[in-house]
Amino acid sequence: MRKGFRRDKLREECGVFGIFDKDGHDVARMSYYALYALQHRGQESAGIAVNDNGTILYHKDMGLVPEVFNEVILNHLKGRIAISHVRYSTTGANSRENAQPMVIKYRNGQLALAHNGNLVNASNLREKLEEDGLIFQSTNDSEVILNLISRYSLICGKVEEAIQKMMQDVRGSYSILLLTPDKLIGIRDPLGIRPLCIGLLGNSYVLASESCALDAIGAKFIRDVKPGEIVTISEEGISSIEMDIKEESRLCIFEFIYFARPDSFLDGASVYQARLEAGRRLAIEHPVEADLVIGAPDSGITAAIGYSMESGIPYGQGLLKNRYIGRTFIQPDQEQREMGVKIKLNVMKNAIEGKRLVIIDDSIVRGTTTKRIIKALKDAGAKEVHMRVSSPPMKYPCYFGVDIPSGKQLVASISSIEEVRQLIGADSLGYLSLEGLLKTPVGAKCGFCSACFTGEYPMEVPGEGSKYLCGGKR
Amino acid sequence: MRKGFRRDKLREECGVFGIFDKDGHDVARMSYYALYALQHRGQESAGIAVNDNGTILYHKDMGLVPEVFNEVILNHLKGRIAISHVRYSTTGANSRENAQPMVIKYRNGQLALAHNGNLVNASNLREKLEEDGLIFQSTNDSEVILNLISRYSLICGKVEEAIQKMMQDVRGSYSILLLTPDKLIGIRDPLGIRPLCIGLLGNSYVLASESCALDAIGAKFIRDVKPGEIVTISEEGISSIEMDIKEESRLCIFEFIYFARPDSFLDGASVYQARLEAGRRLAIEHPVEADLVIGAPDSGITAAIGYSMESGIPYGQGLLKNRYIGRTFIQPDQEQREMGVKIKLNVMKNAIEGKRLVIIDDSIVRGTTTKRIIKALKDAGAKEVHMRVSSPPMKYPCYFGVDIPSGKQLVASISSIEEVRQLIGADSLGYLSLEGLLKTPVGAKCGFCSACFTGEYPMEVPGEGSKYLCGGKR
Amino acid sequence: MRKGFRRDKLREECGVFGIFDKDGHDVARMSYYALYALQHRGQESAGIAVNDNGTILYHKDMGLVPEVFNEVILNHLKGRIAISHVRYSTTGANSRENAQPMVIKYRNGQLALAHNGNLVNASNLREKLEEDGLIFQSTNDSEVILNLISRYSLICGKVEEAIQKMMQDVRGSYSILLLTPDKLIGIRDPLGIRPLCIGLLGNSYVLASESCALDAIGAKFIRDVKPGEIVTISEEGISSIEMDIKEESRLCIFEFIYFARPDSFLDGASVYQARLEAGRRLAIEHPVEADLVIGAPDSGITAAIGYSMESGIPYGQGLLKNRYIGRTFIQPDQEQREMGVKIKLNVMKNAIEGKRLVIIDDSIVRGTTTKRIIKALKDAGAKEVHMRVSSPPMKYPCYFGVDIPSGKQLVASISSIEEVRQLIGADSLGYLSLEGLLKTPVGAKCGFCSACFTGEYPMEVPGEGSKYLCGGKR
Amino acid sequence: MRKGFRRDKLREECGVFGIFDKDGHDVARMSYYALYALQHRGQESAGIAVNDNGTILYHKDMGLVPEVFNEVILNHLKGRIAISHVRYSTTGANSRENAQPMVIKYRNGQLALAHNGNLVNASNLREKLEEDGLIFQSTNDSEVILNLISRYSLICGKVEEAIQKMMQDVRGSYSILLLTPDKLIGIRDPLGIRPLCIGLLGNSYVLASESCALDAIGAKFIRDVKPGEIVTISEEGISSIEMDIKEESRLCIFEFIYFARPDSFLDGASVYQARLEAGRRLAIEHPVEADLVIGAPDSGITAAIGYSMESGIPYGQGLLKNRYIGRTFIQPDQEQREMGVKIKLNVMKNAIEGKRLVIIDDSIVRGTTTKRIIKALKDAGAKEVHMRVSSPPMKYPCYFGVDIPSGKQLVASISSIEEVRQLIGADSLGYLSLEGLLKTPVGAKCGFCSACFTGEYPMEVPGEGSKYLCGGKR
Repeated sequence: MRKGFRRDKLREECGVFGIFDKDGHDVARMSYYALYALQHRGQESAGIAVNDNGTILYHKDMGLVPEVFNEVILNHLKGRIAISHVRYSTTGANSRENAQPMVIKYRNGQLALAHNGNLVNASNLREKLEEDGLIFQSTNDSEVILNLISRYSLICGKVEEAIQKMMQDVRGSYSILLLTPDKLIGIRDPLGIRPLCIGLLGNSYVLASESCALDAIGAKFIRDVKPGEIVTISEEGISSIEMDIKEESRLCIFEFIYFARPDSFLDGASVYQARLEAGRRLAIEHPVEADLVIGAPDSGITAAIGYSMESGIPYGQGLLKNRYIGRTFIQPDQEQREMGVKIKLNVMKNAIEGKRLVIIDDSIVRGTTTKRIIKALKDAGAKEVHMRVSSPPMKYPCYFGVDIPSGKQLVASISSIEEVRQLIGADSLGYLSLEGLLKTPVGAKCGFCSACFTGEYPMEVPGEGSKYLCGGKR
Repeated sequence: MRKGFRRDKLREECGVFGIFDKDGHDVARMSYYALYALQHRGQESAGIAVNDNGTILYHKDMGLVPEVFNEVILNHLKGRIAISHVRYSTTGANSRENAQPMVIKYRNGQLALAHNGNLVNASNLREKLEEDGLIFQSTNDSEVILNLISRYSLICGKVEEAIQKMMQDVRGSYSILLLTPDKLIGIRDPLGIRPLCIGLLGNSYVLASESCALDAIGAKFIRDVKPGEIVTISEEGISSIEMDIKEESRLCIFEFIYFARPDSFLDGASVYQARLEAGRRLAIEHPVEADLVIGAPDSGITAAIGYSMESGIPYGQGLLKNRYIGRTFIQPDQEQREMGVKIKLNVMKNAIEGKRLVIIDDSIVRGTTTKRIIKALKDAGAKEVHMRVSSPPMKYPCYFGVDIPSGKQLVASISSIEEVRQLIGADSLGYLSLEGLLKTPVGAKCGFCSACFTGEYPMEVPGEGSKYLCGGKR
Repeated sequence: MRKGFRRDKLREECGVFGIFDKDGHDVARMSYYALYALQHRGQESAGIAVNDNGTILYHKDMGLVPEVFNEVILNHLKGRIAISHVRYSTTGANSRENAQPMVIKYRNGQLALAHNGNLVNASNLREKLEEDGLIFQSTNDSEVILNLISRYSLICGKVEEAIQKMMQDVRGSYSILLLTPDKLIGIRDPLGIRPLCIGLLGNSYVLASESCALDAIGAKFIRDVKPGEIVTISEEGISSIEMDIKEESRLCIFEFIYFARPDSFLDGASVYQARLEAGRRLAIEHPVEADLVIGAPDSGITAAIGYSMESGIPYGQGLLKNRYIGRTFIQPDQEQREMGVKIKLNVMKNAIEGKRLVIIDDSIVRGTTTKRIIKALKDAGAKEVHMRVSSPPMKYPCYFGVDIPSGKQLVASISSIEEVRQLIGADSLGYLSLEGLLKTPVGAKCGFCSACFTGEYPMEVPGEGSKYLCGGKR
Repeated sequence: MRKGFRRDKLREECGVFGIFDKDGHDVARMSYYALYALQHRGQESAGIAVNDNGTILYHKDMGLVPEVFNEVILNHLKGRIAISHVRYSTTGANSRENAQPMVIKYRNGQLALAHNGNLVNASNLREKLEEDGLIFQSTNDSEVILNLISRYSLICGKVEEAIQKMMQDVRGSYSILLLTPDKLIGIRDPLGIRPLCIGLLGNSYVLASESCALDAIGAKFIRDVKPGEIVTISEEGISSIEMDIKEESRLCIFEFIYFARPDSFLDGASVYQARLEAGRRLAIEHPVEADLVIGAPDSGITAAIGYSMESGIPYGQGLLKNRYIGRTFIQPDQEQREMGVKIKLNVMKNAIEGKRLVIIDDSIVRGTTTKRIIKALKDAGAKEVHMRVSSPPMKYPCYFGVDIPSGKQLVASISSIEEVRQLIGADSLGYLSLEGLLKTPVGAKCGFCSACFTGEYPMEVPGEGSKYLCGGKR
């Protein structure tokens, strides 16, 4: 959804991948394909760092994975261990400096770091470090984390110990991969807010944000990294340092609603099934008499199928996305704004004409896009349009990596459901209940963070007004 | 499907669009959005020609519409009348010379031409013209057509008369737009093999390969151009020269099966409905006991929904296409070929594990991709995979614009259905019957060409071995 | 001088190169280096066509030689015979269509043509051909020439005969290379207005616009092609058809003054020596008391050295050109126009401060640049600036390939010498006499066209007002 | 000399420019033109940082100034104060990280730094800082300098005080520009090894590596920054902190021989005059009977003119450089290596045939290029070739910013003059004496570092074997 249709939509997070090769794989090329499978988690920049006999080589730049890398660059990135990263799209002249992995030299040699998540106390930590005379070259959380690890390495024998100390300082969400000259280390924050899993390709361990990256390269899923766990993969094999955690974990529920790729499994639950289930539950919670169920492409499709299954109302394709929108697409100008939706979405007039429609979307953020979609459906002859949303009203900003606009831009935080219904022009509007939503990740072995719906954050967060994004742009 | 997954798939045709402005529209920008809606008909090259006070300006190049045009170029293309073109992907060093519209000067001034279709006697015509001393700069049918029009203009008073004479010489499929300094002319071959329709945007007439281009720019559908008709749009309005045709028309049935965009209507029939209907009929013709119906993305999805509706077997998403494949994607090499399908298609393991699947695709060409897809489904735990194809076995090459490989590469032309089933590894295989297929374009006011299934061509064609493509590359 | 400093300067012509390999050379790569040596003759577009076993492959595009070609493209252009072309810079949206070589198919197979020069009767020929129903896709003279050759081939046994007939129809300047499936043919117009020479590389004959291209690839200079001569190089070796010409030849004198590369020899005379000689003669014709002679970079340098030698006034560097100006350089805007000269030329203040300068340039066209240069020199402390021009006042447009602006823009055509002196702000101004100029190509075995100084054209030309450029843009 | 001819030549240094606007200038655009004038000092990367109301905006990337910046980027860089940088060409995958200005945040806000020179104790300083837990993201000296300034700011009231402390730690050559939210600061190392001067444009102070950058934008030269001086330009005007230095300064003599642009003045001496003078002195020290003096383009031209003036032997152009060599030029391969010199240099055969030549170059590094040039001259018919070098034999590496290869690759460090003569194939060879050289910067108000000729470094340097470049790549 780069420069695509739904501009008022949640932006994606970051994705990370790591591999410690023992089978003679081309680790850069494997990373390329794995990153490609994680591309939905970030389209702004991509990077791969490899350990080449103790020296870390890397390449990173703005753009999609196939734009950033070519054969020549991949061939240059020779090594046995690699970490890689894709980053979501922001604006800003100097965002190139924020591309990851971040590669540094410290007293014990080189380190590369790739990070998915957001620290809530990065500002404070940064200020403290600045008070000690440190300088910062980016606005990246990774730079804070690396500085902490470097500092603690002065008093710690092993990098894992320094990492443990760093984990006591930082608060927030983080799934981190670290590349040292001889180790690949994976770290997940104590609440497990962002996903991270372990796979095996032949005899080579891999770490990835989502299991879909394992599937892409043919690796076998082993297990999820536990909340607070530090996993070290080295020549000797895999070892782990676990943290003694009392609290239930808090995997971001939005991974299931929107972020993660449907073929992934997160902490034991299938994303696809969760979305199907959300649709089913929505049908139970908000039934309606209608002729056809359709999904808002692409993220509403699966829930729409679930709604259809449960309600018995036939599922159909009412809207298709034009697949050719690219970075350089010239947006219709002011006078042509009406054309916007029609150019980016293909309305199946024949399928919907004269029909009472149920349309499912995963969420409503500002409401403007939903309004245009409903207008396009009615223009094409839909008799009724019943909006169903496969998550509760989104009312609160996220401080853990999801780019949700601040309160006032969230239509549900300033309007009642009836007001939203009127605004978007739907004949009826139903949101999935929080209780319902939390039951959708069937089989999940974790708890969830649903603060964007409830405002109950799993830890103290900065005051409203500040805005935190993945990787620390502020 | 640029450099995408299904390399052994039928290639797309060309798309054309024309506008004669009477409302002050920016015709280049309108063409941009219309071409964008027709992008599925051709991704190799794009071009727009406008009439700027009697002078024809144009820009064309290799690439997708948003790659070929930018604001600066669009702003340069000022004029009241425009024709434009998208062309499918071929290889070849000099293909840039074949980009359209083709713009020429002849004794009566400038002419621009955009062409969708393929002449079967282009070679003969070319040879005859060469015998008269003419030179050719491209391998494009358009150059033959323009030479004929120019020659006949020596003895004809109006360009329409010259066009009529040209139409007596050429045989094959053609939907042509011509731009003269003061007219926009649309021509459809006597059998109506390729689609062409008329729309109205305010007071401005437009012509387009498919009605979806009208929807994109907000134009109203007026009617299809009739087989053999020459439609002239000028300052005076619209006028028409019809041909007295005895035969039933022969719209390419493959437009419904695969080419056209599902939201288009062709000669009175909805493409979406035709595909849904194909799925329904397939369910009747080839029922099977199963747990889930899925579609091969993207072209099998609609038929899969139809199959589900008719059979009562639930529809689900078993395969999703990775949307980020681009021109520069590095294909897995020989050793990694296994990874190919997994990188380009996301298999919804959770949806299909332990299930008996029906998978619908629009056609099987060489069979290699189908084989890999079925293997991926079984690897992911599908208990049974029943292949259903929403068209009959494809056995014969097309001479009218569809890039079907020659006989021996068409698996159905050299193998029995049972042999194909074994080759692709399906538990059962069923093709839609020709009778069934011909009933799918519900409400169509035309006959059909289905020669790729029957070998019964609507006119004499060159001997097997030659290969004809859209626009005449050979 | 791409987008460089002297915008009001004469534009360059085209350059051509051909090779018939008998030694196993990589003809595309040889062409690349030869074109690179001819780059000063044209920076707009470049192209190479090779004969690959009877099929002509080619690549051409807008840009400098190293921008148009890369290793992949060169490797693709396999063959034994090649012709190639560089074209000067014009503006115009569709100029890509005018890039050469032009490659066509006619009744006897394929032909490629590369052309340097300008036909004065192209318009008439074009009209006549259009009256016969022909169409034109470019505004290129080459298209006219190829059509004539094709037509005459109907009644001629050999292509050389058709060429002879073509040569009776066309009037103007032309040095042409033709590539047939088995021959390389070079043609020079009956007056020899544009240069063309023959070289030998091992056993392989080459043809080039200037001898510097032979030096670049290590080929030996054999002789110049004679006015009106058709040289055929084939498997059998070299053969020639000469024309019986009464008139003295008319090599463009501007090749010596400005166009050609100083290390080239044209029709027996050294360009370097001609420029040195021009400087010497200028010193004799227009002596002045001064302290330092400098040249306007780059074309005035050699004549400045000659002036110094003859006059005994020391030669020095007063102005150096900034070498980094490129296509994308942002020109200073209106308010910063003063900065223009200072950014593009480096004034050696130390060398000129307090001195009486003689500055030599090859010509004054509009006078605006000269004015700015003289101002810059005076600003830097020059006591006196004496302008000397190594050619006579340029008063008339050229119809044979030199892009000279029409009469009114030529300062010398509307002003007396004294008026020009005042306009440019020089303390004195002296032009080389025509008599002097014509003696500068020492040892030349040809006559000269000097119509731009005299208005005495060597053949009837179109009326003033029309503007003819190399290759026929109008 | 990007990818140009003389690959075994000294690489250029860096260039810096700064402006504090008080007249409403567009500081980014001014920086663009100034950097363009300094482009000869570095072609690898370019960058501009501006202070936009207290926030520092910047853009930097690999490439030439016109490649890195365009109108959009310049328009984005709004502010009142700017510093900018060009960097010489190195190889290395991650060199983008080393582009300057480096922009950081520390406890007192943002800082940007641009640096020309090389620290000899950067490694030690880096290690010490790493021992304190600091991390480094580049291999740039600038990062060390900024860390020191940041650390000292903890105990210093003003940034200038922190700078003074930093200057006590670092050893080596440095001309530094610092941009703070409200100041532009210029710093020159205590020996003044690298140049830095002050200019005035209207009421706005500017700082630049060379005076040619002042000329380019129309600024008036005020004075050179003194060795060890810290110049602060703020809203209040200009102020200065001078260091009490006992030693004579040590401006790099190679600036006069090769680096600086001839129209610049450094510490009071004209570069052009120094080169002319070097030629004159060479003529006195190493006279020879000859017919023509030529220069190796471009750096030998001025000295050749001087040699001619003194000796009375005429100056002429024997070699011209092909100006179109660009980044993407395809180098001749192994078999075509002979073509190399001929493609890149145009030999004026007519000028040199049968003549006894004196050829002047500024230095001989490895000797391979000189050898090829002399061969090309002899091939073109030169009777004798007498090589004269406008500097002494270069025998020792530079640790202060000049990229001189290590000892063994310097032909003069391993061979006698007679051996070098034989190697390069000259009929005689003469180097300018050190005494002679040191007299060439006429009027200079400084001493010189000539360690590359003498091995007498102005301070302790790291042991041979290490290699130090501008900005600290190692």
